[in-house]
Amino acid sequence: MQGLMQDWPLTLDKVLDFAALTHPNRAVVSRSPHGEIVRTDYGAVHSQAHRVSRALIESGICLGDRVGTLAWNTAEHLALWYGIYGIGAIVHTLNPRLLPDQIAWIINHAGDRLLFVDAGFLPIVRAIAPKLKTVEAIVVLSAPGDGPWDGVPNAKSLDAFLAGHDAPVKWGSFPESTAAGLCYTSGTTGNPKGVLYSHRSNILHALAANQGDGFGLCARDVVLMIVPMFHANAWALTSVCPMAGASLILPGSKLDGASVFELLETERVTLTAAVPTVWLSLLQYLKETKQRPSTLQRVIIGGSAVPEAILRAFEEDYGVRVIHAWGMTEMSPMGSLCTLGPEEEKLDHDSQIRLKLKQGRAPFLVEMKIVDDAGRELLRDGKAFGRLQVRGPAVTRAYFRGDGARRPDGSALEEDGFFDTGDVATIDPAGYMQITDRAKDVIKSGGEWISSIEIENIAVGAAGVANAAVIGVAHPKWDERPLLIIEPLEPGGVAKETVLRFLEGKIAKWWMPDDVAFVEKIPLGATGKINKLLLRQQFEHYRLPTA
Amino acid sequence: MQGLMQDWPLTLDKVLDFAALTHPNRAVVSRSPHGEIVRTDYGAVHSQAHRVSRALIESGICLGDRVGTLAWNTAEHLALWYGIYGIGAIVHTLNPRLLPDQIAWIINHAGDRLLFVDAGFLPIVRAIAPKLKTVEAIVVLSAPGDGPWDGVPNAKSLDAFLAGHDAPVKWGSFPESTAAGLCYTSGTTGNPKGVLYSHRSNILHALAANQGDGFGLCARDVVLMIVPMFHANAWALTSVCPMAGASLILPGSKLDGASVFELLETERVTLTAAVPTVWLSLLQYLKETKQRPSTLQRVIIGGSAVPEAILRAFEEDYGVRVIHAWGMTEMSPMGSLCTLGPEEEKLDHDSQIRLKLKQGRAPFLVEMKIVDDAGRELLRDGKAFGRLQVRGPAVTRAYFRGDGARRPDGSALEEDGFFDTGDVATIDPAGYMQITDRAKDVIKSGGEWISSIEIENIAVGAAGVANAAVIGVAHPKWDERPLLIIEPLEPGGVAKETVLRFLEGKIAKWWMPDDVAFVEKIPLGATGKINKLLLRQQFEHYRLPTA
Repeated sequence: MQGLMQDWPLTLDKVLDFAALTHPNRAVVSRSPHGEIVRTDYGAVHSQAHRVSRALIESGICLGDRVGTLAWNTAEHLALWYGIYGIGAIVHTLNPRLLPDQIAWIINHAGDRLLFVDAGFLPIVRAIAPKLKTVEAIVVLSAPGDGPWDGVPNAKSLDAFLAGHDAPVKWGSFPESTAAGLCYTSGTTGNPKGVLYSHRSNILHALAANQGDGFGLCARDVVLMIVPMFHANAWALTSVCPMAGASLILPGSKLDGASVFELLETERVTLTAAVPTVWLSLLQYLKETKQRPSTLQRVIIGGSAVPEAILRAFEEDYGVRVIHAWGMTEMSPMGSLCTLGPEEEKLDHDSQIRLKLKQGRAPFLVEMKIVDDAGRELLRDGKAFGRLQVRGPAVTRAYFRGDGARRPDGSALEEDGFFDTGDVATIDPAGYMQITDRAKDVIKSGGEWISSIEIENIAVGAAGVANAAVIGVAHPKWDERPLLIIEPLEPGGVAKETVLRFLEGKIAKWWMPDDVAFVEKIPLGATGKINKLLLRQQFEHYRLPTA
Repeated sequence: MQGLMQDWPLTLDKVLDFAALTHPNRAVVSRSPHGEIVRTDYGAVHSQAHRVSRALIESGICLGDRVGTLAWNTAEHLALWYGIYGIGAIVHTLNPRLLPDQIAWIINHAGDRLLFVDAGFLPIVRAIAPKLKTVEAIVVLSAPGDGPWDGVPNAKSLDAFLAGHDAPVKWGSFPESTAAGLCYTSGTTGNPKGVLYSHRSNILHALAANQGDGFGLCARDVVLMIVPMFHANAWALTSVCPMAGASLILPGSKLDGASVFELLETERVTLTAAVPTVWLSLLQYLKETKQRPSTLQRVIIGGSAVPEAILRAFEEDYGVRVIHAWGMTEMSPMGSLCTLGPEEEKLDHDSQIRLKLKQGRAPFLVEMKIVDDAGRELLRDGKAFGRLQVRGPAVTRAYFRGDGARRPDGSALEEDGFFDTGDVATIDPAGYMQITDRAKDVIKSGGEWISSIEIENIAVGAAGVANAAVIGVAHPKWDERPLLIIEPLEPGGVAKETVLRFLEGKIAKWWMPDDVAFVEKIPLGATGKINKLLLRQQFEHYRLPTA
């Protein structure tokens, strides 16, 4: 028997409609890419989004067409998103930090028909313009004039694009399963893959993110959204803020400590969200200038694990609550949030800090489990570690155009419907998950797993060690055994035996590296993480003394 | 183009699965109908709910079957709900405060196959047993023994019903549009009508209710759920608490001030929810015993408008924040919540109090508008008042078995898909809605509306007046004109002219009553509201001097 409640599709146009009706005057403040502060509100963003929709329709953009954006966080960019959503076209956010060739590959793969580009990113477009196969026109945002822009074909300014398109558009009227957004994974191995969000998944994800133990935003909050809009829905804040009637502050391209602090103070920000590197800059700036945030209450940190120094600085020095979050593009992106339950709140301060360094608990609408190589679920005892797999209405089922398919129907999922995150984690009895490794970095010795990261974290504490990496090297009996690679502070400054003796007793006997190798410099990737792919290539033919 | 996110139906079994996995040891505490405190947790409620599902299946209960409950708020009752939900049967909550004949009528109309009944309500069942046409068996909750119970056919205790049914059941596996709950409106005019909630509508409603500006519950909250489970999903708390991992305290049948206060203190409650009458008892008890709640932070008040004295007592005397809520069975039930935005927080205290007496703002997922008799939308200026109409995924589309249909397809909606609440309201520019009247009580004079309640509220302030009511009486020229009916403090103690002079200048000239009638006693309904139906019957043939 079917329930008799109303058919009311969960489509994103309703989010901005709601904000414009209930919170029309709530501030939306941007720092434009030129630096000046531009003030608007949800009512005006809503009108602007309607003009975008009208102009898109007049340009021939239809339901399901992809529209690319290469832009910083600004109110203009927000209006573009909702203008695209409203007519059932797809917001395809492009990450300007990728290599131009990658950006060109992604645009062609997505089949973007239009591109909206911040004037500051025109050099990228100029470089790739000859390679673009599907782009019919380029609209320049934050343009200092009306062009022309040499080397950028079919370009016009946003003002010119919108001119005369003032008649409102009927938004919605498509099913909630309709695609809303497209975001490519970074593709560290192989080509980037497209994650295709739906209207339904984005709205459910935002509702889940704004529960009491999540962001918990209300109309009295002021949110500085530093996480870029080209990172997986800007962590849901582009939906949650209008849904909650929270004021939205958009920092444009200026993410240095001084600029961030200025916005925190002048706009009286209560919550902000970004990756750890942004907070390093801010905390350094606060220390140097002996200032402290006066209105900030909560900071969401995700993208990579929260370093203890950042956690302690916010909580101990400035009384700001840190919410450690974990997720991935394929999860819309939120997977877990580290907030404390009543039992954890009774722990002493240092135990609370240790707990907050974990990635946290899955909220309702995210299912999480850890499994061994055979897919058997492991204990939630905080010790067993295994592949982290997830399920939920805002988790990817398949990639765009069937890339990365694991089954004939294009599905990228395990047989039981879970998505394998590629991470290795523990889950404790209270549900707190902690990432311990990437699955591809785990060392598989005689059918058992050894965590490379755990050994590395201990080894860097040995005297004379600047950095340490552990990789698995082929072994005839055990399949793989750990090799510890050391970057010494000074060449020849550390002996193999010293390091091994330092590890003894701190890790299980069978985890002890079979050998230690020394390198001048351990290679790091673009985000500062150890480039293990390169290390594995360098040591591909390394012969362990035990082999 | 369709999004590529996972198909993960929003079904209620997942709510308790989540609580049992992530918050297994979080307390669920009941005061049993016998008075003693029974402690359990979400893990145990989950196991119990599985036993209920197994026993229901063995009894032949299938997807879509209605199962009635006539019970107070207890953990047993909660486990029943989830056991019924889990197999796609329908929880039909029965209000024991209705007349036995009404209850029998509702059970027959719903076609309940099983009834779960608190032992204390067996007299009701005994009285109606001969009239029940579809009930095959009765399961007695909180039974002091194993029966037999004279005059209650096919009865067994819950223990006997569950005995031997320990094998877990596979929950879910039906679409989210499946019916989950059935609740009848009180039917003050005509027969009660059944509202049929779906799994989807209940989950969306709970997610909306627990946003930052809603209940905002987290795992550190302890909730005393006083609002009965037989009132429209207990205001979503039966879903929100397990979803948030909040502790749930269930008061059974003891709703007097002393019992409520005891639970508030012993269980360290942070949020509670009930109708104003419950709060009157509690506040009187606190005053008499000179005690004050020590952990309570927020109280949700709904069911009828919050009296100013209750609001001020909680906020001014005890520092407890009041959230005035409005809704109806047909809305699952939440329609609006009165929380303050940043502009309202800057108002002086008395202005804030006046604002909090309004019913508040529609959260995301509830659309609201006011219209005139021709269905034209009225201004949101805080002055224009019109019929309040609503729309959303947790708002009724049609009643059970097509009752109350307004269109051939059984729909109970207006042509544009809105549901007419039967209330008359204003909405101010910031979105705050205030109920000013019931639509049937509004006086329609020459095509314009006169609010009966507004005149009454002023008239009771006149010297010598104990109570006042205003109804519309037929008029040859104006259709209807207002008649003011006065219950004087002392017979003959007030003159017609005195009252009219008192009203002059306080209301619009054309709102002035055409006549004043005196009665010994103004009739009140069961909930203390003026029984206007009866007054209209009494004055049906009243001839106004102006007619």
